[in-house]
Amino acid sequence: MSKYDELKKKAYEANMRIDELGLVLFTFGNASAADRDQAVFAIKPSGVSYDVLKPQDMVVLDFDGNILEGDKRPSSDTKTHAVLYKHWPETGGIVHTHSTYATAWAQTLRDIPILGTTHADHLTVDVPCTPPMADEMIRGDYEYQTGMQILNLFEERKLSCKEVEMVLVGSHAPFTWGKSAEKAVYNSAVLEQLAEMAYISLQIEPSVFRMKQTLITKHYDRKHGKDAYYGQK
Amino acid sequence: MSKYDELKKKAYEANMRIDELGLVLFTFGNASAADRDQAVFAIKPSGVSYDVLKPQDMVVLDFDGNILEGDKRPSSDTKTHAVLYKHWPETGGIVHTHSTYATAWAQTLRDIPILGTTHADHLTVDVPCTPPMADEMIRGDYEYQTGMQILNLFEERKLSCKEVEMVLVGSHAPFTWGKSAEKAVYNSAVLEQLAEMAYISLQIEPSVFRMKQTLITKHYDRKHGKDAYYGQK
Amino acid sequence: MSKYDELKKKAYEANMRIDELGLVLFTFGNASAADRDQAVFAIKPSGVSYDVLKPQDMVVLDFDGNILEGDKRPSSDTKTHAVLYKHWPETGGIVHTHSTYATAWAQTLRDIPILGTTHADHLTVDVPCTPPMADEMIRGDYEYQTGMQILNLFEERKLSCKEVEMVLVGSHAPFTWGKSAEKAVYNSAVLEQLAEMAYISLQIEPSVFRMKQTLITKHYDRKHGKDAYYGQK
Amino acid sequence: MSKYDELKKKAYEANMRIDELGLVLFTFGNASAADRDQAVFAIKPSGVSYDVLKPQDMVVLDFDGNILEGDKRPSSDTKTHAVLYKHWPETGGIVHTHSTYATAWAQTLRDIPILGTTHADHLTVDVPCTPPMADEMIRGDYEYQTGMQILNLFEERKLSCKEVEMVLVGSHAPFTWGKSAEKAVYNSAVLEQLAEMAYISLQIEPSVFRMKQTLITKHYDRKHGKDAYYGQK
Repeated sequence: MSKYDELKKKAYEANMRIDELGLVLFTFGNASAADRDQAVFAIKPSGVSYDVLKPQDMVVLDFDGNILEGDKRPSSDTKTHAVLYKHWPETGGIVHTHSTYATAWAQTLRDIPILGTTHADHLTVDVPCTPPMADEMIRGDYEYQTGMQILNLFEERKLSCKEVEMVLVGSHAPFTWGKSAEKAVYNSAVLEQLAEMAYISLQIEPSVFRMKQTLITKHYDRKHGKDAYYGQK
Repeated sequence: MSKYDELKKKAYEANMRIDELGLVLFTFGNASAADRDQAVFAIKPSGVSYDVLKPQDMVVLDFDGNILEGDKRPSSDTKTHAVLYKHWPETGGIVHTHSTYATAWAQTLRDIPILGTTHADHLTVDVPCTPPMADEMIRGDYEYQTGMQILNLFEERKLSCKEVEMVLVGSHAPFTWGKSAEKAVYNSAVLEQLAEMAYISLQIEPSVFRMKQTLITKHYDRKHGKDAYYGQK
Repeated sequence: MSKYDELKKKAYEANMRIDELGLVLFTFGNASAADRDQAVFAIKPSGVSYDVLKPQDMVVLDFDGNILEGDKRPSSDTKTHAVLYKHWPETGGIVHTHSTYATAWAQTLRDIPILGTTHADHLTVDVPCTPPMADEMIRGDYEYQTGMQILNLFEERKLSCKEVEMVLVGSHAPFTWGKSAEKAVYNSAVLEQLAEMAYISLQIEPSVFRMKQTLITKHYDRKHGKDAYYGQK
Repeated sequence: MSKYDELKKKAYEANMRIDELGLVLFTFGNASAADRDQAVFAIKPSGVSYDVLKPQDMVVLDFDGNILEGDKRPSSDTKTHAVLYKHWPETGGIVHTHSTYATAWAQTLRDIPILGTTHADHLTVDVPCTPPMADEMIRGDYEYQTGMQILNLFEERKLSCKEVEMVLVGSHAPFTWGKSAEKAVYNSAVLEQLAEMAYISLQIEPSVFRMKQTLITKHYDRKHGKDAYYGQK
């Protein structure tokens, strides 16, 4: 028994869920869950197959990436998670996948344009994609810099991490987050769906234009605005 | 026990079926069933996951959108259903999904062209797509206006809701309907298939032309004409 | 008990198999099996769902399309099956589906080009597609004329129905056949795979050229030639 | 009992796994496993369905392709496996499939460009595709020549079979390999994923460029370099 047992269970369940949702091939993904009171997060161990993964395999770290509990190596992307948790205090869960369509967009270094209400139900802007990373950052503390690059992009574009819960890391793959690990998983599945639909729309109509701003606002607000009427009270 | 129990069961089953058919991600869709004698319809509650949905969760409303029974909020798209039921008296069921290919077409604001007999077996015209909605309609009673926009499109194009049981709402997603909720569900799956096939055909041959009118008529009539010979008597 | 029981079982199993292989949505397809000694074939009844289909539902007809046994209406495409059985005496089974990629190619009225060994393992030419049917043929005995059109195409192009066991009917969908119903089902799945691969290749490289004739011959002969060495003796 | 029983079990399991992973339609693929101490390999029998395949069906051969044990014909591609095992002494398993996206790329005779980290996690160059084979090689000992062509391509491009564990055979389909049959199977699934993602990226952005060399090196090294930190120690 450990004071992190509940947190490890949450992280474990989020990892199993991204596999069930078809968002990962083999071990190409990882999910983490944070406990803000204890200022720690639990993450998948690196390269361990979903077939054999157990809650107790989760590795617990602080937001500077120091291991507090766990006898396995954490995910190779752990420092990216740590950086985001450290700078975005509302974040309770983070998910990284190489899901097919979102990753294909990331490989083109293009934002995913906002073309319909499925997108606007979740965010009011294009899904942002980070530019190529500078060589010295890649050669340096790469995973830490990946996190910094996401933070910088959000700052430059004046995006709120509470309103935009997903990003494409250019030439790499998506990261999503949310108030909880469960919400971060949900966002990964939503992003993959938005990425697939935008891809198809673009093939049908290469000159496809963004949807109207009023419609974006309407759909976002009916789910997230102060007078939201989507879902149960 | 309530006089709406049978109706709620029908609506419930239609909702479960669109999930089984792979037409919805999470809660991105809703189905309703109407009882013409009682002048009411039952619809999915808003944002409730298919895992936990039960027949008694269905919300019953009249065709003006007033809630008659149910302790949950109805689907956020309820007023669109209500408007269509009110103006199209033969309609017994309505389904709304964000199915991948149909939604991708809706995002391009293009009709789905009639290219083959799979399409002509079900309708004799392109699947119509509504134009962008005016700002004041979006800001106003949006879901009601969505229904009105569908009605207006059908009137302008002189389409019959008994012959064309599907529509794309531009920048949004499809709605389908039919004599029963079961038929509306069937139409949602057919639409997704037509949308996928037309997409692929268009990629193979960008200058793809519509099929011959005689072949359209032949296929529609062998299923729906007065001397129809498809199916059992 | 009837002298057609075994044949009906074969036809039933072929119909169930095309559903299992994901080649049909709802009832958009039909399979038949022929008994050459009795000069009859058994085919799926029209519009009956695979959920409730039973072997005894199969309808037995002669090669002129006259019903010999069965209390249900046969498939609306029955006459096409009959014509092919009548003119191609080696054919023991026929399958018609609206499988996604093959149908999308049929909608473009284009042959599926032979691009690789997966194709050449099964046939040495492009999968042929019939041209649009003349209006008087559509308005006349349509399903009979569909069969005649396939026969005419094979005659014009000097194709052998024993070497080319698949065709696209333009603006419609594929038909496949073989020595047995089981082989015809196999060919439907192979055709769908060839259609999907050719589609993707064409998107990657629009100027994609046919594979070398020597390689076509090699692959076809190692499976079908007199010194074939594929499979067990 | 035979001294090859364990090897045959490994080959059997690899064959079953490529079917489970959705990489083969019917019998369009084969896997083999080598025992370097005994200088033999076990491979799938030709054309035997996965439904009925048993470990004892595997055929055991030496690296010149002579059958040592087994009463069934080995896969028609056996000589390609033999050639690769003979020349690449570190190879413990080989897999051949006709998986959809990888085969579609092979049909275009184009290398799969390295566009993202999913690719760079596994190899640092484009997935190489062999040029069309000369007629006399096709007409001669075709499967042996297929192996030779792969070897020649790797020599010409100065590729190491330990660093690049996958190839497209032009107009045909992919081969993958690895230290074990299990790793070869893994590589087949990875290749299919890379092929699909590169395809989608290319459709979104036809002028898509390769990713940065520093990022390629970083990702490859964190998994395979001397200071690798991916996975467990």
